[in-house]
Amino acid sequence: MAALPKGFRAAGVAAGLKKNNDLDLALIVSDADCAAAAVFTTNRVRAAPVVYDQRLIAERHPLRAVVINAGNANACTGVQGIRDCEETAALVAAELGCAPHAVFVMSTGVIGVPLPMAKLRAAIPHAARALSPDGLESAARAMMTTDTRPKLASGDLSAAAKSDPSARAARIIGVAKGAGMIHPNMATMLAVILTDAVVSQEVLASTLRRAVQRSFNRISVDGDTSTNDTVLVLANGTSGLAPTSTEFEIMLTSVCMDLAQQIARDGEGATKFVTLKVTGARDEAMAEAVGRAVTRSPLVKTALYGEDPNWGRILAAAGASGQDIDPNRLALWIGDVQVCAEGAPMPYSEAEAAAALKSREITIQLDLGLGEASATLWTCDLSHEYVTINGRYRT
Amino acid sequence: MAALPKGFRAAGVAAGLKKNNDLDLALIVSDADCAAAAVFTTNRVRAAPVVYDQRLIAERHPLRAVVINAGNANACTGVQGIRDCEETAALVAAELGCAPHAVFVMSTGVIGVPLPMAKLRAAIPHAARALSPDGLESAARAMMTTDTRPKLASGDLSAAAKSDPSARAARIIGVAKGAGMIHPNMATMLAVILTDAVVSQEVLASTLRRAVQRSFNRISVDGDTSTNDTVLVLANGTSGLAPTSTEFEIMLTSVCMDLAQQIARDGEGATKFVTLKVTGARDEAMAEAVGRAVTRSPLVKTALYGEDPNWGRILAAAGASGQDIDPNRLALWIGDVQVCAEGAPMPYSEAEAAAALKSREITIQLDLGLGEASATLWTCDLSHEYVTINGRYRT
Repeated sequence: MAALPKGFRAAGVAAGLKKNNDLDLALIVSDADCAAAAVFTTNRVRAAPVVYDQRLIAERHPLRAVVINAGNANACTGVQGIRDCEETAALVAAELGCAPHAVFVMSTGVIGVPLPMAKLRAAIPHAARALSPDGLESAARAMMTTDTRPKLASGDLSAAAKSDPSARAARIIGVAKGAGMIHPNMATMLAVILTDAVVSQEVLASTLRRAVQRSFNRISVDGDTSTNDTVLVLANGTSGLAPTSTEFEIMLTSVCMDLAQQIARDGEGATKFVTLKVTGARDEAMAEAVGRAVTRSPLVKTALYGEDPNWGRILAAAGASGQDIDPNRLALWIGDVQVCAEGAPMPYSEAEAAAALKSREITIQLDLGLGEASATLWTCDLSHEYVTINGRYRT
Repeated sequence: MAALPKGFRAAGVAAGLKKNNDLDLALIVSDADCAAAAVFTTNRVRAAPVVYDQRLIAERHPLRAVVINAGNANACTGVQGIRDCEETAALVAAELGCAPHAVFVMSTGVIGVPLPMAKLRAAIPHAARALSPDGLESAARAMMTTDTRPKLASGDLSAAAKSDPSARAARIIGVAKGAGMIHPNMATMLAVILTDAVVSQEVLASTLRRAVQRSFNRISVDGDTSTNDTVLVLANGTSGLAPTSTEFEIMLTSVCMDLAQQIARDGEGATKFVTLKVTGARDEAMAEAVGRAVTRSPLVKTALYGEDPNWGRILAAAGASGQDIDPNRLALWIGDVQVCAEGAPMPYSEAEAAAALKSREITIQLDLGLGEASATLWTCDLSHEYVTINGRYRT
């Protein structure tokens, strides 16, 4: 599952940024130059690595490495934060013998505390020595903060690549982290997607934007948008396989959706994984906007936690989405039980609706009755444990 | 405190909509016709009484009475919901001997369940018989849902009304309810404000709009906007005192701010009352928008509950407000402790910042460093108890 595409190596080591000697520094390298594309948070308060990386991507430097630390977000750290990114990249570049601007830097953790550079200076050489073709799962573990498990998703491009007469095989694999401060807007917490397929920078950039819109931008844990959200895709071309852009987009979207769902499933304190299908919208943007309003509603999410089929809260959240919906056309299903039609209650079995909510996995469909467009979004419930985790995050 | 202005009477009775025979039906009447103004929720999913009352107000009927039930919101109830409003108003009008369109109808409680009209038919005559000049506190109690206490605020217009040579005295008093689904947009849960001052319908409407913008629209408990939000002001002119519109606006705004703060203070599960001052904005709308993003952030609110001075979350929430802020100009104070300047950490005493958060009342100032405008907003923390209350609301 965690096998890397050709030409990539990875490692995860303990640099002492987390307690208990947990893995907290990930390094992913490619032996060959990579075409790269990335999307970043739309939060105006951007962490230093986001500011730093946006310049790298804008200048179209080929990339060779990604260094990721957990335990400290390097956000709200001023000019020192940017200097710390530059030093981190230089340290990695010295180990690998590449240019500093071939190193992409990511951070996640507490906001407003300068990076402990002494610990990174000591740990980066250690990480470089630990690089291995089997190291991606350790790297995925080193990215975790309140995540309870590492998140990986992969796909195979050989079968799909019918256009390639040489029948070469290529692979795509992604790692992600994220459990709280999850309400991505054009990107999510941290995700790195690697492929040895031959893909141009232009195709990477356009396919990543569309894939992210339908995956990471459709999950919400708590409605808070992070300062550090970044999704990076690297293609080193080592396999020699050149998929069509459609073939690549299908595979990239599939990997992004898989990772995004893993993040919602592992939402801080989550006891339920919720799939919300918004149908009958005038266009996809409308379906998505209504869905985002519902998936961020604390009242909807606490009712799901309490297994209470309090469906009026879903309609209320949809009504406050800012979209031009018609309340008298709304229909709602909890699992297979239709509870509402034309905006008014249906006769339904309260026991059946409650039973649908007892499941660990819940599907809800909200039909707007206005058109043919739809969007699927993913979220989790809001539990006592979410409050516990976030009331004591720093301590 | 709860004395009514001249010419008003009120009552609160138990109609059986709440459990335990709690008060759940409020009736407020004026012996004389009232000029009236109201603002309503901007949620597209409007409860039946909102739809019904918007027509009354648009048609400028003088009002004589307000009937309010708790325990059932009469929202998402379709055509039957409107018919139930009409019948409720007719029942009250029959008791009072006034026109049905002189009766304003408000509801709050569970969404998606038809009003139990048999109970209202039985209870309305009982409420009419119980009307008394001392009945407002009972009426305020009958409006409560998850509120832990009734909410009243009053003011005296005699001293302020220097423009009136006859030195008559007038009074203004308001009652409100609200504890959850509180993120008002142009109005909040339910509030009724009564005065015996002489105020024209035009002045009532314009002053109410401005007063609500600076009071109810500046509180947030959970970021959910209700289907039933309504603020009504009635002026029966019985005192004969005619304040200037400025005098009236000052007093009305003061009463609205007092009620709004009581709602935030009594937010579902709240253990902290938080005053957020956003300063240094380009204009008041910018200050308000940034403030609303911060006061609705679950991560900020859980950190406040945990008494954790995790100030980066406040900057992150401000950054995601959609406003054009400059991260490098942000400054933040928790109580009197400045923790951040120019978007980067200040050397500060963690113990002092933590001590400021231990208080039941917390003041936070966020300076945007861009201009001279400011706005003050009020919110509460997000506690385990909020999750408990909303996981089992209907049961």
